[in-house]
Amino acid sequence: MNMVECIVRKRDRGVLSAEEISELVRAYVSGVVPDYQMAAFLMAVVLRGMDESETVALTKAFIDSGETIDLSSIPGVKVDKHSTGGVGDKISLILAPLVAAAGVPVPMMAGRGLGHTGGTLDKLESIPGFTTQLSESAFRDQLASVGCAIIGQSERIVPADRKVYALRDVTGTVPSIPLICASILSKKKAEGTDGLVLDVKIGRGAFLPDRDETVKLAESLVRLGKGLGLKTVALLTEMDQPLGRTVGNRLEVLESIEVLRGQGPKEVRDLTLALGAEMLALAGKIRSPAEGLSLLAGLLDSGAAWKKFLEMVRSQKGVVSFVEHPDRWQKAKREIPVPSPTDGWVAGIDSLVVGKLCVDLGAGRSRKEDAIDPAAGAVLLKKTGDRVEKGETLVVLHADRDIDAGEAVRRMQAAVAVSDRPAKAAPLIAGRIG
Amino acid sequence: MNMVECIVRKRDRGVLSAEEISELVRAYVSGVVPDYQMAAFLMAVVLRGMDESETVALTKAFIDSGETIDLSSIPGVKVDKHSTGGVGDKISLILAPLVAAAGVPVPMMAGRGLGHTGGTLDKLESIPGFTTQLSESAFRDQLASVGCAIIGQSERIVPADRKVYALRDVTGTVPSIPLICASILSKKKAEGTDGLVLDVKIGRGAFLPDRDETVKLAESLVRLGKGLGLKTVALLTEMDQPLGRTVGNRLEVLESIEVLRGQGPKEVRDLTLALGAEMLALAGKIRSPAEGLSLLAGLLDSGAAWKKFLEMVRSQKGVVSFVEHPDRWQKAKREIPVPSPTDGWVAGIDSLVVGKLCVDLGAGRSRKEDAIDPAAGAVLLKKTGDRVEKGETLVVLHADRDIDAGEAVRRMQAAVAVSDRPAKAAPLIAGRIG
Repeated sequence: MNMVECIVRKRDRGVLSAEEISELVRAYVSGVVPDYQMAAFLMAVVLRGMDESETVALTKAFIDSGETIDLSSIPGVKVDKHSTGGVGDKISLILAPLVAAAGVPVPMMAGRGLGHTGGTLDKLESIPGFTTQLSESAFRDQLASVGCAIIGQSERIVPADRKVYALRDVTGTVPSIPLICASILSKKKAEGTDGLVLDVKIGRGAFLPDRDETVKLAESLVRLGKGLGLKTVALLTEMDQPLGRTVGNRLEVLESIEVLRGQGPKEVRDLTLALGAEMLALAGKIRSPAEGLSLLAGLLDSGAAWKKFLEMVRSQKGVVSFVEHPDRWQKAKREIPVPSPTDGWVAGIDSLVVGKLCVDLGAGRSRKEDAIDPAAGAVLLKKTGDRVEKGETLVVLHADRDIDAGEAVRRMQAAVAVSDRPAKAAPLIAGRIG
Repeated sequence: MNMVECIVRKRDRGVLSAEEISELVRAYVSGVVPDYQMAAFLMAVVLRGMDESETVALTKAFIDSGETIDLSSIPGVKVDKHSTGGVGDKISLILAPLVAAAGVPVPMMAGRGLGHTGGTLDKLESIPGFTTQLSESAFRDQLASVGCAIIGQSERIVPADRKVYALRDVTGTVPSIPLICASILSKKKAEGTDGLVLDVKIGRGAFLPDRDETVKLAESLVRLGKGLGLKTVALLTEMDQPLGRTVGNRLEVLESIEVLRGQGPKEVRDLTLALGAEMLALAGKIRSPAEGLSLLAGLLDSGAAWKKFLEMVRSQKGVVSFVEHPDRWQKAKREIPVPSPTDGWVAGIDSLVVGKLCVDLGAGRSRKEDAIDPAAGAVLLKKTGDRVEKGETLVVLHADRDIDAGEAVRRMQAAVAVSDRPAKAAPLIAGRIG
């Protein structure tokens, strides 16, 4: 394989063979192909695309770059969920124990927050003691005993994706359907799951700014996932406002606990149920989505899901009494109310702005090495469609660090559109591709 | 300036400001922007283009990255020639002394061969003692005393272009009109010339494979050259076969000497006269091209151009007796005749294949650090349109190194198309843009 020839072919709308793609990925991981050639190649892929055979080859090359996990010793159809990343998206924390409570094993490998969206691992690690670093055998043992586990991805799984993703992040080559598909599906296939439910976010702050492109992404993910032997389905869900009422690690754990105890915001519960029903369907546990919804609602209301969550926390060394008594949690040093500048109705809440503001409050990372303040974040008292009076609190910001409160308030006010006419939130689930 | 934002803007068909381009180039030269970000940016430029204001800004940023040469102390309008690179193109060796003999100073900064095309510097350095490394003051002195000088580009001139070009070469980002324009024109502007005649090669082996694109390139070069304050004109010339009858460094010097002495192949003489007449016109020395052609033909036939060449060789420390007595030159160890496999007419000679074969014979470099065999190359006994008999010698290959003669003969035979019907070479000059 001549790397310059591969770049030139892709640049000129050509197609690479599976062998070429496999060799190219191997050469990049081993350092034979330098970053600058890979960067030029990735930009050519972003602008010229890859056909389905190339995308499959890329996904397989990513998988082959590292180890894979064998979960065949765990009985039943294992199903995972993956979200393309939303602000305030704490669904995984609720969904994994809920679906496990229904008897379907959930082997979940999650990520950390970077940029404006939070990460499931960071949220769980805001529980004292909770570890997301399990050995492969501990992961398998917990799946067998508890039925679910949420862990970080091992360094030994798909190292090619890790190296390529880090390069994409700094070379403007993120928004490409084949590259996104290969990145997501290689990780999921390598972690040993049998089924995969995708939560593809649509709207402002999503991976792809264009709605039509996002639909195409979901279609590609489902088609390619099936091609890799995964049972795959995707829900398209709106992220034109943050999900639920909290953004920030410990605040989101609190909201997850509420939903696990049968309470919490309806939209968080509804989305969890919808995704969970799809997971049960993939596992062959139910005959209709309606059956799944009522089965899972029952598990939330009965406390079975909550009990499963406590089992998972205990198994992953988290302090169980901590999650049992959120009322005892230490609060952030500062709570800053954000008043509505006018009378009206909330017409929308810009997820991107809220996400970035929460990062600056300490809830996320601008750079990989940044520390996180677990208590930092925002509580949204008003959401799209709500009536507000001038001066009424829209949002309460939580911060441990010294910040310019006036500026934070102004940024949040700019994120919340207040209209003089009644408004309505778009339906949370915009579509289903299966 | 945020480099990722610049990459993303160009990727998404946006336009960068002159300030952004200037800062981006500065940051790249200083090492703040790494190769991988520049590579992604360059690929985005290749595929999305740059408008005229961006191209001008890039050219100026290249110029500002280093020193510029002030030739205002040399009286008269200084005119240089630049070719986009052809196989067998030895025109510069003849043209510089010829135009200087007509009283127009020629400050020529030339390049080395890389890839399938040869370099003027390598050809001149095949003359024992000849140096192409002159200080700026020695360059100026020689221009004042001799009237012409052909030297290598100083490391201190447009370092940004050197760094960017090296990256383009290994990232598949060469064929881009704005990038080619900025590279050529920044160097020419910085070397201090007042006028520039461009020889833009068209056809197989040229910078841009597509003829329409090549015409656009020539138009852009002329428009942008004028915008930079250079008197600029371009000739479009065919390179569907190598120029003249020799390819290889010392072989091309020999052919140049023949033309300088009023002999040599008609096509080499004709192209030299055409480019020279344009240079005289830019310098205001003549009133019509016809006047220029006859004036320059007279200088070739009278020996005035040859005398000027000897002055230049002497001034640049070349052994004058060497160029005066080509009959005493040491020949290559092996001369391999390439017989015609059939009767017919030569219908074309693939420049790209001939250029690459000559590199393998030792006439050029595959990598920068490769050494050159000055005597290696090819003599084309037959050219497009010539009648040949089966077994008659088409080409004689010259090599000092051990090569597989059978394979070399087969490659050369494959490069020469012999047709059973009479053929005719395309006119050498395909167009003029001024």
